[in-house]
Amino acid sequence: MSAAPAASVALEALRRNCAEVPLLTLGEDTAPYLTDHRRLYHGQALAVALPRSAAQVSALLACCHSLGIAVVPQGGNTSYCGGATPDESGQQLVIGLGHMNRVRAIDTANYSITVEAGCLLAHVQRAADAAGCYFPLELGSAGSCQIGGNLATNAGGLNVLRFGMARELALGIEAVLPDGRVFQRLRSLRKDNTGYDLKSLLIGSEGTLGIITAATLKLWPPLRRRATAFVAVADVAAAIALLAQLRAAAGERLHSFELLPRAAVELACRFIADTRAPLDGAHAWYVLCELSSFVDEPLDELLQNALVQASSLGWVLDAALAASEAQRRAFWSLRETIPEAQRRAGPGVKHDISVPVSALPAFVAEASAWVRREVPAGTLVAYGHAGDGNLHFNINWLGGAAAADVARQEPLIRRAIHDLVVAHGGSISAEHGIGRLKVAELQHYTSPVELDLMREIKRALDPKGIMNPGKLLAP
Amino acid sequence: MSAAPAASVALEALRRNCAEVPLLTLGEDTAPYLTDHRRLYHGQALAVALPRSAAQVSALLACCHSLGIAVVPQGGNTSYCGGATPDESGQQLVIGLGHMNRVRAIDTANYSITVEAGCLLAHVQRAADAAGCYFPLELGSAGSCQIGGNLATNAGGLNVLRFGMARELALGIEAVLPDGRVFQRLRSLRKDNTGYDLKSLLIGSEGTLGIITAATLKLWPPLRRRATAFVAVADVAAAIALLAQLRAAAGERLHSFELLPRAAVELACRFIADTRAPLDGAHAWYVLCELSSFVDEPLDELLQNALVQASSLGWVLDAALAASEAQRRAFWSLRETIPEAQRRAGPGVKHDISVPVSALPAFVAEASAWVRREVPAGTLVAYGHAGDGNLHFNINWLGGAAAADVARQEPLIRRAIHDLVVAHGGSISAEHGIGRLKVAELQHYTSPVELDLMREIKRALDPKGIMNPGKLLAP
Repeated sequence: MSAAPAASVALEALRRNCAEVPLLTLGEDTAPYLTDHRRLYHGQALAVALPRSAAQVSALLACCHSLGIAVVPQGGNTSYCGGATPDESGQQLVIGLGHMNRVRAIDTANYSITVEAGCLLAHVQRAADAAGCYFPLELGSAGSCQIGGNLATNAGGLNVLRFGMARELALGIEAVLPDGRVFQRLRSLRKDNTGYDLKSLLIGSEGTLGIITAATLKLWPPLRRRATAFVAVADVAAAIALLAQLRAAAGERLHSFELLPRAAVELACRFIADTRAPLDGAHAWYVLCELSSFVDEPLDELLQNALVQASSLGWVLDAALAASEAQRRAFWSLRETIPEAQRRAGPGVKHDISVPVSALPAFVAEASAWVRREVPAGTLVAYGHAGDGNLHFNINWLGGAAAADVARQEPLIRRAIHDLVVAHGGSISAEHGIGRLKVAELQHYTSPVELDLMREIKRALDPKGIMNPGKLLAP
Repeated sequence: MSAAPAASVALEALRRNCAEVPLLTLGEDTAPYLTDHRRLYHGQALAVALPRSAAQVSALLACCHSLGIAVVPQGGNTSYCGGATPDESGQQLVIGLGHMNRVRAIDTANYSITVEAGCLLAHVQRAADAAGCYFPLELGSAGSCQIGGNLATNAGGLNVLRFGMARELALGIEAVLPDGRVFQRLRSLRKDNTGYDLKSLLIGSEGTLGIITAATLKLWPPLRRRATAFVAVADVAAAIALLAQLRAAAGERLHSFELLPRAAVELACRFIADTRAPLDGAHAWYVLCELSSFVDEPLDELLQNALVQASSLGWVLDAALAASEAQRRAFWSLRETIPEAQRRAGPGVKHDISVPVSALPAFVAEASAWVRREVPAGTLVAYGHAGDGNLHFNINWLGGAAAADVARQEPLIRRAIHDLVVAHGGSISAEHGIGRLKVAELQHYTSPVELDLMREIKRALDPKGIMNPGKLLAP
């Protein structure tokens, strides 16, 4: 990367070449863009640009490319990995996409919608609903994250089991390349074999290869029925047996399959008001599972029969079917408040890992044993999207601990857990991406061939290295 | 690309550096590898190498890279676009993957299978069946095409509506890069956000960025029920209305939705023995639709109810539900013999196009009117996977025509049809890819930005241009 120009020169050039793009430079205006969601990073910025069109993004990038100004694209600023936060140099331009927030088109006969990057996820969901369709991406942060960020990070969430990750939901994208060229491919086709899959390459590249400015997304018919159960299971192996049974009994109707240890339920009940455990008694593990259907059919009956059968096989120890929408929401609310309960419980360490579903029982057993042995003061709270093999393998210090103490232990814990993940054929970042947080981890666990391949592509598309430097790939 | 070495020097180097890899050089041995499936291209080769492992592919590519020997990867040699056939120079090395044909692993709890590139598609399907699972990729050529070629070309086929293209079925791949490096990423994870999506980039790159040597694929539970109907519809708009209704009524159970004009049914009945029209009377358009389910449920009833309703709305004019597996096979056999019937009917021109499903009625109307006006001697036989917006928009000269006459008209027809496709937001290659056949078409219809981006990636990964030169991208 060439040396960055002096801030005054850079700002002057941006003001001259991109006169129509609002530029924030005052501290009070830029502050919300400079700290990440988890408050791990506090950066500085040359300015924050708020373009309203792909043409404006193009003008910004062309100028930054010619001058060697580094760029940090930012959507709703909800990255868990510091992926959208500028560094401390004050030389990086943050480009916020929030002002590009139109729904450009919706085609119900083709089950597709075209939206700009700055649309809130919740806004996309509502636009689909209003047209009598369903857009299945679902994250806890739906009200604040933006669809452009969801695509840039290939977001996962609660409905991956049935509908796939964000990449699988996109039919086409519009993106501005690092030198300002606009890649226009907002096709709404299910089948299109005309050349390399540039869309999939840009999706999930975390703003290091370009800026996604719009996307055409798949829609589905509206969901007409849901059936939801909170289930106590004997252990992780029983949960996985139940998963296979539900998949065979319900097929694609299996919508979500979340695993929760007792510690997670207890944390939510202790720290979050109006939360209580759905089942009496204490069990080691719970499953929150949901079926859904596009047609009007007796899903409760299907789920109940499957659970009775699983109970007769010893996998299910107790279960509660949601008898109302309010009860269903209560089950989900318990699940969704776990991150907040963990925050309130004090310092902890987090991992966003996945292994093949078949390896989950062995992985959880080995990793739990390691935590009990090596981190005796820590409580393991490993919960998450077990149906996808994805667990948020977190440790809390419920007896209290100094943040500095926890931080000191974190590298050792991380290495041990990630070593086990990789030994089981798993991933050190299932859905949160790499951002700034996991650059060294990616470096450590990825083969030299794969890292070189990524660097070769990065160099080909962004030869000056201006796009989100310091994120995803080590320099 | 650097100048190729003399054939004798190249062969000598390959024999020395890759002594363990069988090399065919006799005309009688190499002949089957030199002509494409449609007999459009007749090439020559330096030799045909038949490696048995990724290490052997690696040795071959390292040698070819260092000497500048061009390489043509070949699976089952069933490309419709000449994508696997060497050019006429006699300087290209064909690498046949057919000897790498092991099933490496199957993990039923994780619903995944790992296979080598040279496995026949039918072999992968049978291995999944034998393990109590289902692998949904389905092509007419399943008994001769290889899974490596299916992935290299992102194959589509009959089940895309429910399960997606080949790219969406792959969890991981192993591939040898142009310089011989092995990219190992045979993970079987549903969620893995660790860097660029190199897998999707290599899949569908038609052997121009590397050679896929193995893949880990998604499996599903076995299908327990199917319901199949052959339906007469008023017109293409009625077919699309029926599609939306079936999607709403059956959700993901909608497995296939094929559109056939009367001319296609008549051709099959005339040229293929033991084929007869499933419905009495003559209708302008037919739909062959199928529902399937992973669970034991009354699909026939569901399909019948939907068709009765569609009939009351005037979309469906007549319908036959398959009452037995034999009848179901007869419906499908009629559909699958159309390409053979077209071959027997004499010369013709073919297009593999897609448009958004919502644009199909207007596109078919406009393109048909053009054909009637400009190609009065031709009969339009536009049939295919309408549920995905994909039609094989073919024209036959049923009154007889000299092949040379047809060939003379082909460029004009192709340009007119493809212009209309693009005007409707469609693709000039929905599922067959580009190969050698459509290089000029891709060049004509793709934006300079997108072509440049593809070339930049090609140069980064294959700087010497040895991988399948002359295919996909113009030099």
